[in-house]
Amino acid sequence: MDRRLKESLDRIFFPRSVAVVGASTETDSPGSLLLRSLLDMGFEGRLYPINPRHEEVMGLPCHPSIATLPESVDLAILSVPPAAVPSLVGECARRGVAGCVVNTAGFSETGREEGRILEERILEAIRGTSLRLVGPNCMGVYSSRGKVALFAGMFPGHGRLCMISQSGSLASITFLTALERGLTFDRIVSSGNELDLNCADFLEYFLEDPEVEMVLAYLEELRDARRFLRAARRARGSKPVILMKGGRTPGGSRAAASHTAAMGGSSEILKGALRQAGVIQVRDLGEMLDTACALHYLPRPRGKRVAVVSSPGGLAVNAADAAEEAGLELAPLAPATVKRLRDLLPPVGTSPSNPVDLGFGAVKPGVYAQVLRAVDADPSVDLILAVGSAPASRKGDPGLLQAITEEMVQAKEEVRKPMVAVLFPGSFLAPHFLRLHSAGIPAYPTPTSACRALACHLWFHSASGCPPP
Amino acid sequence: MDRRLKESLDRIFFPRSVAVVGASTETDSPGSLLLRSLLDMGFEGRLYPINPRHEEVMGLPCHPSIATLPESVDLAILSVPPAAVPSLVGECARRGVAGCVVNTAGFSETGREEGRILEERILEAIRGTSLRLVGPNCMGVYSSRGKVALFAGMFPGHGRLCMISQSGSLASITFLTALERGLTFDRIVSSGNELDLNCADFLEYFLEDPEVEMVLAYLEELRDARRFLRAARRARGSKPVILMKGGRTPGGSRAAASHTAAMGGSSEILKGALRQAGVIQVRDLGEMLDTACALHYLPRPRGKRVAVVSSPGGLAVNAADAAEEAGLELAPLAPATVKRLRDLLPPVGTSPSNPVDLGFGAVKPGVYAQVLRAVDADPSVDLILAVGSAPASRKGDPGLLQAITEEMVQAKEEVRKPMVAVLFPGSFLAPHFLRLHSAGIPAYPTPTSACRALACHLWFHSASGCPPP
Repeated sequence: MDRRLKESLDRIFFPRSVAVVGASTETDSPGSLLLRSLLDMGFEGRLYPINPRHEEVMGLPCHPSIATLPESVDLAILSVPPAAVPSLVGECARRGVAGCVVNTAGFSETGREEGRILEERILEAIRGTSLRLVGPNCMGVYSSRGKVALFAGMFPGHGRLCMISQSGSLASITFLTALERGLTFDRIVSSGNELDLNCADFLEYFLEDPEVEMVLAYLEELRDARRFLRAARRARGSKPVILMKGGRTPGGSRAAASHTAAMGGSSEILKGALRQAGVIQVRDLGEMLDTACALHYLPRPRGKRVAVVSSPGGLAVNAADAAEEAGLELAPLAPATVKRLRDLLPPVGTSPSNPVDLGFGAVKPGVYAQVLRAVDADPSVDLILAVGSAPASRKGDPGLLQAITEEMVQAKEEVRKPMVAVLFPGSFLAPHFLRLHSAGIPAYPTPTSACRALACHLWFHSASGCPPP
Repeated sequence: MDRRLKESLDRIFFPRSVAVVGASTETDSPGSLLLRSLLDMGFEGRLYPINPRHEEVMGLPCHPSIATLPESVDLAILSVPPAAVPSLVGECARRGVAGCVVNTAGFSETGREEGRILEERILEAIRGTSLRLVGPNCMGVYSSRGKVALFAGMFPGHGRLCMISQSGSLASITFLTALERGLTFDRIVSSGNELDLNCADFLEYFLEDPEVEMVLAYLEELRDARRFLRAARRARGSKPVILMKGGRTPGGSRAAASHTAAMGGSSEILKGALRQAGVIQVRDLGEMLDTACALHYLPRPRGKRVAVVSSPGGLAVNAADAAEEAGLELAPLAPATVKRLRDLLPPVGTSPSNPVDLGFGAVKPGVYAQVLRAVDADPSVDLILAVGSAPASRKGDPGLLQAITEEMVQAKEEVRKPMVAVLFPGSFLAPHFLRLHSAGIPAYPTPTSACRALACHLWFHSASGCPPP
């Protein structure tokens, strides 16, 4: 990518000095919350609240303006009324500020002429200068190592995921929802109306960094689609790009226009181009994180032949259906594996072929783990889907589910193939899900969601077949 | 339905006397667990353990055989080796027993000739008698009012749902997973290989009972499809039938054959016939219970125009997309409603048209509830989708999410139209989900699942359009 662009973005995401324009002694004002977010993150550089009405804000000396600062700061965060933004941005440019985050809303997304005109004036103010701009109508940047946050209360996650989101709220919700799956972020940008820096700039920047593992995106408009697609294509097979497109439908598209001034393109053509570029398209946050989990935790798959191992038989059938509906194939187990499973399992109420049915209820200790190792050793198996549950009782028999979870974790130490887990029933099981994630086993609430994620994982790595719809 | 069939089924589901053949002093034997399940349920009728080797089991006098019982019991539960089943069933028939549950597995589902021959001998033993049989290879019956259970540890749920499941384990898992959504069952049958009584018998029986609200089914084979479809068609618009078909794919179908000896039919033809009959088809337990929630909690819908109300804007766009992708329409709000919303909401970072965006973070107390009431009052709105979330922070800001939840609950007291909720993020929120369900608001983890459930609800009641795939 362009060297000067990279330098600007480095200064925005890893700033040594930050000015917050609009911070005040009112602790609930947007500017104060942004200053609070830097303090909560433990920002280690020089921090300058800017407000002509105060001498001190949150224990920090307050400066009257950008012009009077003792240095050219790397990043200026602007939370001021829309009409004040163009001249303020101009002041930042003249003072040699590297990047501005314009949090302020009320521009082209309002649909009103004055909003559009204000945006033109902002562009005029930075034309010919080195100042780059994030927003307006955004929450700006989160950087775990740079110790910058979108919202007060965030904290360094020390992860290797990045996110580009045209919605600040969605970025924040993703940050929190990812946590419970053990996924944490290195950098996030809430890019808003993308008047200057756009999603293609951020995608190039993130994908070219060797520290970054994958990029999630929530976009209502691909403002530089050609460059975005090129960057994704170059990373295919090494760094996944998972995209949730907002405004896929006429209704959603109208909503996106008033949200971030997004202009909807032809959805089917865009979908096809994204698929060509290897971008994994998802419909909602659940699918986005399901897929991210698979790609984060699993080794590269060799093929699409899955072995289903299930403690109850009904779920084994359902998992087999889900696997084939997601475009996977049930692995035909080798005769030696079937014989090994026959020796391990009781003769009645079980099945030693694929899907392997271990029966329901009290499986002998160690058997679940041995079955997982046996299918892992079979050369005709590429992927493993492990399903577990326990009979209904007033307490949901946590003992048995815990035992199954522990056997999955124990087997994982030796299992070499991509393995995912499905546990029933849902919300009683949050601790078991956390345990599996911490052992590197992505866990799902249904076979459908597990198989969808596996199929995305496979499609990304193999560049063949078709991703799930 | 046939009067004699109904009488037999009444005696099986509401027995005054039950014999458990195979109960023993070994507390872990299958027969003992079945006896334990009756004691755990608080079965109030006469209970007879049958075992020639014991005088007493679990504090109850033990009888040597069915023949020596002091009465013709309503229900005999048989947990004995497969070879002993035919003669034992014959003995039950001669003694005037109304129904037998044959738990034993090892029949036609094994694929072996001897299993098939044993099943023929069972049929011979009951031919020309009034004895009716559940199973073999099943867990039998659960009856909340009859106080009979499938598994030890179950309890009366006092609900009005029924379930027919060819998998006992799946019935048990459904029972438990439904609990966390406030859904409880009146009756469940685990019907196994369906040698005698089949899913069509049970569907007719459940649907004709005025106490029953809806029927869930997990079936690997529709053994009397014509009668099953006729019963569902008659109930369309009043009692939903939600079906998860096992063995929809070649792989799943092979698995089903070894699970319950199911013979797969042509899947596309069957799917079309089921749709014609108004049966709601789902792919997994998650979709089954999502749909059951909508149909249980929501009033009859008038149309498909949905109002989306969202506290964050990105989710508003995503919910609008999900609604249109599920075949719903975004309601065009009346000018008076838009004006009312404009008065309620801050001018920037919000949207007063549909999807209504309340902004993110601290919404003024009472506003969320007022917005819900305003869209409910709009005559162009048929359905309401309420989305809530809160900014990321180390604790997930439970205060704000709790406030949104309480405003949804508060508004529900006046809201007259079908309303569903979506809350982010997932597992931190189990208590909020329970609170919403207890207030009669079905709650979902994503807009996709919520809209799918709404669309099923609408399709069932309107008999027009197409259900989601």
